[in-house]
Amino acid sequence: MFLSKLMPMQEAEAIIKSQINLPGTEMVSLENAPRRVLGQNVKSLLNSPPFDRSAMDGYAIRAEETFGYGEENPASFKIVDRIGAGQMSEVELKEGEAIQIATGAPIPSGASAVVMEEYTHSHEEVLEVETTVIPGENVSRAGEDIKIEDRVLYPGRILNAPELSIIASAGYSEVQVYKKPSVGVIITGSELVMPKSHLNGAEVINSNHFALKSLVESSLAVPDMNHCIDKRDLVRDEFLRLLNKHDCIITTGGTAISKGDVVVDVAAELGEVLIHGVSLRPGKPFAFAKVENKPVFMLSGYPVAAMVQYDVFVRETLLQMQGLERTPNLLTKTAARKIPSTLGRTDYIRAKIEKDKVRPLKIKGSGIIRSMVDSDCYIIIEENLEGLEQGEECQVLSYHSLQV
Amino acid sequence: MFLSKLMPMQEAEAIIKSQINLPGTEMVSLENAPRRVLGQNVKSLLNSPPFDRSAMDGYAIRAEETFGYGEENPASFKIVDRIGAGQMSEVELKEGEAIQIATGAPIPSGASAVVMEEYTHSHEEVLEVETTVIPGENVSRAGEDIKIEDRVLYPGRILNAPELSIIASAGYSEVQVYKKPSVGVIITGSELVMPKSHLNGAEVINSNHFALKSLVESSLAVPDMNHCIDKRDLVRDEFLRLLNKHDCIITTGGTAISKGDVVVDVAAELGEVLIHGVSLRPGKPFAFAKVENKPVFMLSGYPVAAMVQYDVFVRETLLQMQGLERTPNLLTKTAARKIPSTLGRTDYIRAKIEKDKVRPLKIKGSGIIRSMVDSDCYIIIEENLEGLEQGEECQVLSYHSLQV
Repeated sequence: MFLSKLMPMQEAEAIIKSQINLPGTEMVSLENAPRRVLGQNVKSLLNSPPFDRSAMDGYAIRAEETFGYGEENPASFKIVDRIGAGQMSEVELKEGEAIQIATGAPIPSGASAVVMEEYTHSHEEVLEVETTVIPGENVSRAGEDIKIEDRVLYPGRILNAPELSIIASAGYSEVQVYKKPSVGVIITGSELVMPKSHLNGAEVINSNHFALKSLVESSLAVPDMNHCIDKRDLVRDEFLRLLNKHDCIITTGGTAISKGDVVVDVAAELGEVLIHGVSLRPGKPFAFAKVENKPVFMLSGYPVAAMVQYDVFVRETLLQMQGLERTPNLLTKTAARKIPSTLGRTDYIRAKIEKDKVRPLKIKGSGIIRSMVDSDCYIIIEENLEGLEQGEECQVLSYHSLQV
Repeated sequence: MFLSKLMPMQEAEAIIKSQINLPGTEMVSLENAPRRVLGQNVKSLLNSPPFDRSAMDGYAIRAEETFGYGEENPASFKIVDRIGAGQMSEVELKEGEAIQIATGAPIPSGASAVVMEEYTHSHEEVLEVETTVIPGENVSRAGEDIKIEDRVLYPGRILNAPELSIIASAGYSEVQVYKKPSVGVIITGSELVMPKSHLNGAEVINSNHFALKSLVESSLAVPDMNHCIDKRDLVRDEFLRLLNKHDCIITTGGTAISKGDVVVDVAAELGEVLIHGVSLRPGKPFAFAKVENKPVFMLSGYPVAAMVQYDVFVRETLLQMQGLERTPNLLTKTAARKIPSTLGRTDYIRAKIEKDKVRPLKIKGSGIIRSMVDSDCYIIIEENLEGLEQGEECQVLSYHSLQV
């Protein structure tokens, strides 16, 4: 009597994806750009390197003057200048002359190569070169890495060290990034209290407060954490207050698929509930609504179900809302033991990777937070499978691969 | 003449590992604990769940009173109370009685199971149960997830949503974590300037400033970024000033393996240079010193070499300095084309993963930042290999797997 009401996962994912608003952008200094998502094309304003430069510490010379010389009969030069990094030589190199040059310094006019210091001997102004040097040797050409006007990056890229490095080299001190989604989180549950060492009566610790804060932050979004007791008027007020301030709402609790569930009722009153109940385990009591044109994710009050629902439906959506499209990588492993499942339901089974195998945890009871701590991956059993035999190949999603 | 001076990678890694100081700890509120590394054992102060609770919305009953009943001949009960989440019933359940109960609420005294709402019909105070219920059904037992005194976490664990959730459930509002390493970074190079759209003379943009800031932050450490021109006295002053404030120093530039390299000379003057030159490509000019009992990592001035050296030597060390030991996961892929290498040298080749294959980038010239942006992994060629044939299996380290 239950299953018929549950929405298949693909349908739920498609509905959510169709309801996501395109993100706005803002300018930030490159100092503040790490871990943001690029919101512009980056075309280089500069050549990199900006000039022909020395790739080694050594001596700039005319390469052809070493032809035929070597360790036994070194070529001889007169040292006419010395240039460090950040300096330029005013001297134009002539026949028989050498200029000492540091790694990164501009090749002086008239020189065609750099001989590494290790292949030379010098005494005062006399340099002996004990090898044959090819024209262009140890010279990095202007624009070798990036040419002016080259497009070096496209929008939608997360900015880590290599990207920041190339944006800087392209001449920019600030960059356009997508705005971080601002997320109003409402943890519902009259029984919930902040952590303490003794509980009274029906009190339960609000662990979802800490889990959701961490999850939203790890999705590069900004959480505004709130708690609300299970009173319809109060939940409604919180919805309205947070919809006014934020791009998106996430709730936990009050989503069970029965009559009188406060949170889903409020969402239905204020907007349109597009999903209520999905064929996912754990995580069946998931709901999704559009209210005031903003997405509202309604997660279970159970910590494990809420975390799985977040992993399945929320994280990638918050990333899309800041312009980052990605598909976390699935691994293929063999099942270390038989795994039962039910046709028509997608299972996310907490498990541990053991080299080429993956072992499902033995979980007693529901809502077991410990199973999330003890596992390092999900085994995903699609709805068209009735479970797996021991040794059968299965799809594995490691928690690490979910990280941004 | 060069190779004999270079230290094999394993030796360099062992030296660095032997020089790392154990981290100190500090207390932080659980709000501020995400992405910190746990510095204590966590023993639970509480049972979780704290009491026998209902796993479903439904009715608490005596299970045995449904035996023999079903859809055709429902069992009948009198509803004597209703309890929501966060409430307790004062009523002791007697024969023929039912108490309506919300998910998460304490099982009332006298009841042995919960029947799901979906299997019942009710009219005012009369409840009909259309199924047989087993004792304990839909009841989560006190301590089922965590028992008082259970050790739920060990030190050295990074705190993400599941860990924060379990610490909260164990009754703690604050937790002991390892201190974040404080890192003084000195970017050396007289030629370096901040990004701008026109460069004069020998100026080069200081892209390492942005790369190193991002790298240190991504290692969960705190960078203090500085720039210094290539003057020995100034570099020395910066070393002393930053050693006084920080746990560790990272420099870029001035490490070439020849005479007169400012940074390594200063380290040798103030402390002991333990590594200078490693058989790594790119990244040969790497140096490591112990100065005032603190580790000093001296990276190349070349952006790509510096990033590879960071990935190879620095990231895991900064993580160890905050108590996090891990081994990033290597993948096995087949080489999409032949890859030459040299015996006695470890190569980190920038490449791109293509399903089961990995394709090395074609890189012209040295110091090519673009190659870091265009690649998503390193192919690691150990020093005992002379390169790889097309189709040969190789070890691949994805950039994503380096993330913490």
